Amino acid sequence: MYLETIDGPHDLLALSSEQRVALASEIRRALIHKLSRRGGHVGPNLGFVEATIALHCVFQGPEDKIVFDVSHQSYTHKMLTGRKAAFLDESKYGDVSGYTEPTESDYDLFRTGHTSTSISLASGLAKARDMRHGGGNIIAVIGDGALSGGQAMEGLDYVGGELDSNMIIVVNDNGMSIAENHGGLYRSLARLRESNGTSPANPFTALGLDYRYVEKGNDIDALIEAFESVKDIDHPVVVHIHTRKGKGYGPAERDQEGWHWHAAFDEKTGEALRPSRCTYLTETGDQLLRMMRRDPEVTGIIAATPTVFDFTPDRRAQAGRQLVDVGIAEEQAVSMASGMAKAGGKPVVGMYSSFLERTYDQMMQDVCMNGSPATFCIGNASIWGWNDVTHLGLFDIAMIGNIPGLTYLAPTTVEELDAMMDWAVAQTAGPVAIRIPAGEIRHSGNRPVRTDYSQTNRFEVTHQGSGVAVIAAGDFYHLGEQVAEQLQRTLGVDSTLINPLFVSGIDSQLLASLQRDHQVVVTLEDGILSGGFGQKVAAFYGNAPMRVLTYGFAKEFIDRFDPAEVMRRNGLEPVAIVRDVARALHDGDGAQGVDAQHTQRAVGNASNGVASHTVAAA
Amino acid sequence: MYLETIDGPHDLLALSSEQRVALASEIRRALIHKLSRRGGHVGPNLGFVEATIALHCVFQGPEDKIVFDVSHQSYTHKMLTGRKAAFLDESKYGDVSGYTEPTESDYDLFRTGHTSTSISLASGLAKARDMRHGGGNIIAVIGDGALSGGQAMEGLDYVGGELDSNMIIVVNDNGMSIAENHGGLYRSLARLRESNGTSPANPFTALGLDYRYVEKGNDIDALIEAFESVKDIDHPVVVHIHTRKGKGYGPAERDQEGWHWHAAFDEKTGEALRPSRCTYLTETGDQLLRMMRRDPEVTGIIAATPTVFDFTPDRRAQAGRQLVDVGIAEEQAVSMASGMAKAGGKPVVGMYSSFLERTYDQMMQDVCMNGSPATFCIGNASIWGWNDVTHLGLFDIAMIGNIPGLTYLAPTTVEELDAMMDWAVAQTAGPVAIRIPAGEIRHSGNRPVRTDYSQTNRFEVTHQGSGVAVIAAGDFYHLGEQVAEQLQRTLGVDSTLINPLFVSGIDSQLLASLQRDHQVVVTLEDGILSGGFGQKVAAFYGNAPMRVLTYGFAKEFIDRFDPAEVMRRNGLEPVAIVRDVARALHDGDGAQGVDAQHTQRAVGNASNGVASHTVAAA
Repeated sequence: MYLETIDGPHDLLALSSEQRVALASEIRRALIHKLSRRGGHVGPNLGFVEATIALHCVFQGPEDKIVFDVSHQSYTHKMLTGRKAAFLDESKYGDVSGYTEPTESDYDLFRTGHTSTSISLASGLAKARDMRHGGGNIIAVIGDGALSGGQAMEGLDYVGGELDSNMIIVVNDNGMSIAENHGGLYRSLARLRESNGTSPANPFTALGLDYRYVEKGNDIDALIEAFESVKDIDHPVVVHIHTRKGKGYGPAERDQEGWHWHAAFDEKTGEALRPSRCTYLTETGDQLLRMMRRDPEVTGIIAATPTVFDFTPDRRAQAGRQLVDVGIAEEQAVSMASGMAKAGGKPVVGMYSSFLERTYDQMMQDVCMNGSPATFCIGNASIWGWNDVTHLGLFDIAMIGNIPGLTYLAPTTVEELDAMMDWAVAQTAGPVAIRIPAGEIRHSGNRPVRTDYSQTNRFEVTHQGSGVAVIAAGDFYHLGEQVAEQLQRTLGVDSTLINPLFVSGIDSQLLASLQRDHQVVVTLEDGILSGGFGQKVAAFYGNAPMRVLTYGFAKEFIDRFDPAEVMRRNGLEPVAIVRDVARALHDGDGAQGVDAQHTQRAVGNASNGVASHTVAAA
Repeated sequence: MYLETIDGPHDLLALSSEQRVALASEIRRALIHKLSRRGGHVGPNLGFVEATIALHCVFQGPEDKIVFDVSHQSYTHKMLTGRKAAFLDESKYGDVSGYTEPTESDYDLFRTGHTSTSISLASGLAKARDMRHGGGNIIAVIGDGALSGGQAMEGLDYVGGELDSNMIIVVNDNGMSIAENHGGLYRSLARLRESNGTSPANPFTALGLDYRYVEKGNDIDALIEAFESVKDIDHPVVVHIHTRKGKGYGPAERDQEGWHWHAAFDEKTGEALRPSRCTYLTETGDQLLRMMRRDPEVTGIIAATPTVFDFTPDRRAQAGRQLVDVGIAEEQAVSMASGMAKAGGKPVVGMYSSFLERTYDQMMQDVCMNGSPATFCIGNASIWGWNDVTHLGLFDIAMIGNIPGLTYLAPTTVEELDAMMDWAVAQTAGPVAIRIPAGEIRHSGNRPVRTDYSQTNRFEVTHQGSGVAVIAAGDFYHLGEQVAEQLQRTLGVDSTLINPLFVSGIDSQLLASLQRDHQVVVTLEDGILSGGFGQKVAAFYGNAPMRVLTYGFAKEFIDRFDPAEVMRRNGLEPVAIVRDVARALHDGDGAQGVDAQHTQRAVGNASNGVASHTVAAA
């Protein structure tokens, strides 16, 4: 095996052209084998094997710097830069992340997982180099799908117009986004591919950039020649290469969308090892399809992630013209929804919590300041969502829950989710976001399901007790039930259990009334405490003797975590919570204070958490 | 006067071509006169008089819908749509906002003040029309400066590729952004202007759009002809018109940057009526220039707003290559800064609080998740910043103060501002944002100025007292001093005064220690309470008998407000605060609870505020 001889990019130089082709096959086999065991980004990596080899043959990292957009195509890069064991040795599969990670290697510049940022980041590397009159090539690798993100255009525009020094933008064009591409740009890219790069409608030259085209984007020699020709160039240039997504693995070539990311599979057949489960995202999509059938003006809007509604191609076909995919362009999706809602349309945006981050301004200005009655379904907003540091879903309550005029609902069951979607689309008072639960699917059973949410911030008391009130939001409601049971069992307290339904505000009347016969209020939320829901409750009682214990997650970046472990160390376990409550009830009698350590665990770490796996508790 | 005959757009049809030209002159005179008294966006409005007349001659609003980007060019539109009195009658000058405002007129579709959103919003109007098989023209008006914003590109890409129905995008190209244009796009626009629209490097056709060019962008007849030719078109089209910024007013034509927005001026000479005052933004720019002179790697980064550093052209010349203007492209600015910082550069981003909203994701992912030691100076982050609802500076603590890994500093004086900038640029531990104070410039005097802020969240006790602690952040520190004086005078309480310096976290040790001999803690912040600084303090004491009174602003959109009045109704006055403290001290003795009304005033309105001028207090 040639791969065994590669400890770093310099080892590539000892290989002949034929040997590099053989190496590419070995890499591809290793990738497919690991991916069949662990799942991951199949298509993007298989298509970029040859280009990665060529890049490392031509450029000398880490002096020459390669920035991968999203970095979901960086597996080959990792194999060539000292981390091949994590792809060859099953016991080491977990040693590397699915994205570039500077703590793993000097060849990795940034942690990235959101699209369309590579040109901006690389332009900063270039500018810093220029300010100190340094040298070296700066390379940004960006896929055609990521080009539709506005920031990529901002980067191209800046680099094309303002940067008069070396920078190489490799456009990895496989003709696909996560699903099919959307937008006018792709017609131009297609015409460039068809014309061997000569079509005049060229979005790169229109932004002031030099341009080269390489049709054989999976041919190492052709790529080396192209990269050699731009190495040490004295101005920015785009090298547009035509690659094949999923190349070398039949199932991934045939179903490029299904294999963009894929769970573990049978290597021979491509069959998924575990049948895909019905999730709350499936339920959301089911409900949306029902609503579409009832009302032809209901319109789903997505930004290149049909999975947020579990909208497979057949379900997209059912939706037909009632579904809009704007491409990877979250800002467009959100403002377009505001426009539709203002004109009496019925837009339902589906967006993952992590990607919603790109639309804070559009949510604030275009949606909320305008009171546009659009509906937003926020997916993977949970500790049980994605567990990559680049895709955390724990910040959205703190992010949009503090924007004026937004009603942010947190259903606890499928039935509440359905009812909230129905109500949100029917009402015209203002924007509504719905936090799609994660984790195990739960049903309301005998609990009544509210159908009218127009009384903003009116919480639901699901069991009236006394002494202790547990306010358990969204998919942490079940944890609240467990806490209530534990309070009864170990302390003999018949606590009040509250399903707040709203996480963007508080029910002042209800909270005030709790003071009559409650001494402790517990809040539970599936998100960071800092800036979140519980802190609003704590502030409400700031000038009262009520003891408030807020539970949620520390303000920190965590990566590849086990949800149960993170919950445990944030004190999110019934036994631990009841222990805290017992202490609060006891302290409250004697009006004891708190020490910094105790408070930090009880109310969460409000300081700046920066490290992965930071333990919030002392 | 023809203008007197215009009560709505239909009245334009009674005028001859010559009479419309005369009308344009009348409008221009009225604009100049009002602007000379009140200040406002001079250049954008003077350049778009003829195009506005032509639009309203051709299209029939409100069925045909015109969306103005930023809407700072909509004054003529307001004059033609029933609101001329607000431009002709000085007593009614204040009746209209400086932006489109749906509550004023059905001809105004959205409240907008941030750039680059018009195409997205208009695409939503178009899609809603199409879903119900309706008719009417949808027109987006966008300036060349706003095109550099990524969202504009997302909109063009979506419309060019996906919308197969009527939409007209009027590109109002005056060859200028707020200051000069930056980016490769502008070379293409210039070539299109020079070639009468025939240059092949066309960014619009490259995104799949049909395209027309109108050289005489201030000629009503030429514009009417162009708009007639695209009226009721069955697909999206760009009409690129060449206008003159500031047209018809000599000073504004000669100094287009200085007259983009201008304060009140002498109509004859163009001289400003009041000399421009030195502000904290001037001080920030002064310090940045000093730092640049000391260290040639210090690099300012702005997104088309040199005013955030008070960087007039002469000061930009002093900065030279140490200043980067990326154009209206905030996302590019922030991620580029991350790249520079990662490569050892010393970027100092200047950005207004309101525009920072567009970079939440870049701050979260590219900057904080990567721990990039970039410096951010956040301007107009205050009740004393802009007072337009579209440009509020009250949300930034809640926005970025909850992002892990960011140190958000709030200086209280010029000396602290300077020290924090020095420290932020010198350190390499992680990103630092500095909240530029607003209001009256203050000095530290005898107060010591901390020079090392590496102990994150270590507050500064500026006076040690007992009973009551006042934590007063940033430019509200002076209010804290007044509260302390008032406490002494009326209650005889020698309170502890604390300058927290940090607003992104709390000093747990200090807060814990306050419990020894304090019963009440007061927090003061120049931002919304919801998700902000004070709520973190309240949550810290959630499980303690400490009474916490948090003061800041309600979560609501407010427009054209008087800062003093808004402070008053949020209880932000020494006398009101001391009255609350007295009650808390009294209640605390008897462990009284709070009622919903009382708490709402004392801790601010945590519910969803949507209306302008909502009174938070009951």
